[in-house]
Amino acid sequence: MPLADFPLLRAARREPTDFTPVWLMRQAGRYLPEYRAMRERFGFLELCKNSDAAATVTVQPVDRLGVDAAILFADILLVLEPMGVGVEFAEREGPVIRRPVRSREDVRRLAPVDPLEATPFVFETVKIVRRALDGRVPLIGFAGAPFTVASYLIEGGASREYLETKLLMYREPDAWHALLGMLAGVTAKYLNGQIAAGAQAVQLFDSWVGVLSPDDYREFVLPHSRALIRALTPGAPVIHFGTGTAALLPLMKDAGGDVIGLDWRVNLDEAWARLGEDVAVQGNLDPAALLSTPARFGPRVRAILDRARGRPGHVFNLGHGVLPQTPVDHVIALVDMVHELSKR
Amino acid sequence: MPLADFPLLRAARREPTDFTPVWLMRQAGRYLPEYRAMRERFGFLELCKNSDAAATVTVQPVDRLGVDAAILFADILLVLEPMGVGVEFAEREGPVIRRPVRSREDVRRLAPVDPLEATPFVFETVKIVRRALDGRVPLIGFAGAPFTVASYLIEGGASREYLETKLLMYREPDAWHALLGMLAGVTAKYLNGQIAAGAQAVQLFDSWVGVLSPDDYREFVLPHSRALIRALTPGAPVIHFGTGTAALLPLMKDAGGDVIGLDWRVNLDEAWARLGEDVAVQGNLDPAALLSTPARFGPRVRAILDRARGRPGHVFNLGHGVLPQTPVDHVIALVDMVHELSKR
Repeated sequence: MPLADFPLLRAARREPTDFTPVWLMRQAGRYLPEYRAMRERFGFLELCKNSDAAATVTVQPVDRLGVDAAILFADILLVLEPMGVGVEFAEREGPVIRRPVRSREDVRRLAPVDPLEATPFVFETVKIVRRALDGRVPLIGFAGAPFTVASYLIEGGASREYLETKLLMYREPDAWHALLGMLAGVTAKYLNGQIAAGAQAVQLFDSWVGVLSPDDYREFVLPHSRALIRALTPGAPVIHFGTGTAALLPLMKDAGGDVIGLDWRVNLDEAWARLGEDVAVQGNLDPAALLSTPARFGPRVRAILDRARGRPGHVFNLGHGVLPQTPVDHVIALVDMVHELSKR
Repeated sequence: MPLADFPLLRAARREPTDFTPVWLMRQAGRYLPEYRAMRERFGFLELCKNSDAAATVTVQPVDRLGVDAAILFADILLVLEPMGVGVEFAEREGPVIRRPVRSREDVRRLAPVDPLEATPFVFETVKIVRRALDGRVPLIGFAGAPFTVASYLIEGGASREYLETKLLMYREPDAWHALLGMLAGVTAKYLNGQIAAGAQAVQLFDSWVGVLSPDDYREFVLPHSRALIRALTPGAPVIHFGTGTAALLPLMKDAGGDVIGLDWRVNLDEAWARLGEDVAVQGNLDPAALLSTPARFGPRVRAILDRARGRPGHVFNLGHGVLPQTPVDHVIALVDMVHELSKR
């Protein structure tokens, strides 16, 4: 299929498609037996850095699920590792930063990183995946957005209230802006490296930005996400995603992106109405719904497709990543359902 | 002052006030030295059950801050304790339920509770507070909403993803509805007991309901919150509050309440526009803003007041409880600022 005709890429440009394209965040993850088998052989970071193995787990769900895109197997914190903050991926605990950044001095001490030199394995994975996919579906690259990556750097891991992050933001606004500006620059290079290596779309994960008020987003985040998105190589559509963002969506659109990723906490039609017609949307089934049964989550899938009907530009996805305890059969049933119910 | 003329109660009825009334969730909390002094003498549960001591900590912030309401010192899980699930208030860890409810059988085994008999100390506290306040400001009673109380019962404590809660909801809808129906009934009696004892308004805390999609809220929560609110003794305004609810607000209004409580993730004017003019609103400064300085949070306070200007019916509050590390001086400065900036 010519690149431009992939349903995912057509939907990202708001062009009509024969069916609604679907892929799933964390579709290469622990719910999948073949992924778990790979993880018995490789530690998480080891797997990210072994391009052949990372390419294998990137392609596995395409074969298994029949999704309309592959998403690079990597982690949003890979760009932090070379900065010397002690990134560790603890088993089932999520990432940990052993030397979190909490002050102006900490920000100044961060080692400058050129991702093209620091994470060559990522770009190598992209190349291998492209060859392995052989034009079947497009490959989506990704990175963490400046706020979300900064939140890990500052908190030292995931958090519930993100108080350390807000403290740096409020008390040391200069250090905050320096940090986010640096991360925006590094991340733009990192994504452009993925695009140059063959990624045909990219997703920017601002997963935890929903903890901010709209005013704080506008002041402390928007300029950096915008600078990052503007610095990306044209041609590869940008998906801009976050969770808990119901009231931030118009500001996230201002920051940029061809597709705005929605979590499950909003009705897709209402969110799209607020965003306006000049942008595509992605989403938005609650990942927890897949823990029930196809008979129960089916009507929810249908409701999402119904809310998107009538105009092109919808990419089906979950509202966040596939949960580890999700039955594979349910994921397959979901993908089939989306294709079946959305056929024009 | 005649009861009907308290600014808080006038605002709840959307009548004009001379200034915007303000109180703060968790205004009787660890940030306050006099509260910490009481906690050195009493364990948390012990303090809740000692009506004289609970009344003292309820009244302390009224004297110290100059707020326009007292809020009963209690906990939303007090109604669970007599149900035999092993409620414990671990130091700095939040509440723990030692025998969480995870199945239909667990729900059936819950001991039925008449709060009038099981928590007499709460109503006694209300009476003592009313005498101590002597008509200075009104007293707000409160309870947890069925979803949020159920989430603690099911998860065994606070959670990030609320997967056990969603699992029971999706897999055992009958047990779910039985549980929430029971909680709604018990909670209505509990709040009516507070109103009978002298609470002049009540707040229903559905603190964690923002983890649900609008469709799930409508199916699994709304009927129970509505039944609860409809069962309340008329006359005491009801404040209906949750966090992360940007897209749920119209449904929460459908469920009921004279005042809808907003967290900081929405702009107050946009939220109020979506709710409609026939309801009052409460909120909505990010509690983390108080960790910065009055010079920094001042403009945020002004922006909230500006967004509420032009119609009566705004009660100023934070978007959630006062954080333990908040400087008392900042809280006092906030209350003064709200009064000063909102004077008509």
